[in-house]
Amino acid sequence: MSAPDPSPAARGADSATRRPGGRTARTRAVVLDAALEELATSDDGDLTLDRIATRAGVPRSTIYRRWGGLDGVLLEAIATFATDQARVPDTGRVEDDLRLWARSVHHTLTDPVSGRAVAALLGRASTRTAALRHRFWSVRSALVRPVVQRAVERGQLPDGTDADDVIRHVGAPLYYSLFVLGEPITPATADLAAAATAAAAHAGVFVRPAGALPA
Amino acid sequence: MSAPDPSPAARGADSATRRPGGRTARTRAVVLDAALEELATSDDGDLTLDRIATRAGVPRSTIYRRWGGLDGVLLEAIATFATDQARVPDTGRVEDDLRLWARSVHHTLTDPVSGRAVAALLGRASTRTAALRHRFWSVRSALVRPVVQRAVERGQLPDGTDADDVIRHVGAPLYYSLFVLGEPITPATADLAAAATAAAAHAGVFVRPAGALPA
Repeated sequence: MSAPDPSPAARGADSATRRPGGRTARTRAVVLDAALEELATSDDGDLTLDRIATRAGVPRSTIYRRWGGLDGVLLEAIATFATDQARVPDTGRVEDDLRLWARSVHHTLTDPVSGRAVAALLGRASTRTAALRHRFWSVRSALVRPVVQRAVERGQLPDGTDADDVIRHVGAPLYYSLFVLGEPITPATADLAAAATAAAAHAGVFVRPAGALPA
Repeated sequence: MSAPDPSPAARGADSATRRPGGRTARTRAVVLDAALEELATSDDGDLTLDRIATRAGVPRSTIYRRWGGLDGVLLEAIATFATDQARVPDTGRVEDDLRLWARSVHHTLTDPVSGRAVAALLGRASTRTAALRHRFWSVRSALVRPVVQRAVERGQLPDGTDADDVIRHVGAPLYYSLFVLGEPITPATADLAAAATAAAAHAGVFVRPAGALPA
């Protein structure tokens, strides 16, 4: 492919050919890219297995056999997207790790392709979308939780610091500013959210009493 | 009105009759309640001046003359709603003030009537809704800013603490948990957001360098 082709389908196919694993892995990647693209661009009513198959250039039966249907392929597309988007830092300093994570969230929300996918997840009220949102954030939380756990082990944060609470407070101001207040977000928005959360974590605000259940 | 009538229209009329100011003020209150109710319950395409007039039981011309049209009456309905919903604390302690403000946000988001109005503001992508959201949050910020300013004057927070940043960080985890993560929020969610923000504010995270422009 010598001439650059900016269309998302071409980008999907291109990134797929770079992934290892042969033809099955390539098909998987192309289908998941197509599913994410359809999710980001179609209205709820137009989001069908047929359209994903057409975009991916594979038979509908291939998708059906592997993922069991529309919900299955969308859930795996979201989980893969959540993983690929996340850049989990490990600098040795919790302040830097949280700042880099906030920058990663900022990138996910402002990059044209991933930002549109997240906006599509948030802009719909359907039960299907709620399940996809839940999958997206549970995959992300699981990836980032070790950042907090490592900080506790290093003695940089107090014992009993709740990792999910920390992660939630880092991301919240970014989503809130962009999607609720409708304000542009910048790297400074990310740095402020990270610094505020780190200060609160140092002060012990996120320590759960021993034996307490997660909220 | 001896028997309680739980319908929103009746509640609107009832609260209007308790407001001071005679017939003009009563008409205003009834129309603004009707506008908010239509906003919360109608699809975008169905949200018209005629429906608000019918619900309020006043001539369309009355609304048109006073507010200039649909956008005008909706903007004033939202500003009034934002003011009525806000309970601005002044306890003398910034930690308590922020906690009470977070509880007020929690109440606004979880009360059936106001929560539905906020969800309607967030669940739509139209330009009109973006303007209404902006009005809602600018009215709220202006009301709560003095909480932070008083804390700075009392020496409880560092000089130069940015009030809007503080307010944004108190509210963000509540909106984020409810509308992005789709998780239920509790008074404990509010208390945690307030405590985290207060700790960060004490640490000076929200201090803007002298001469810095707002982000």
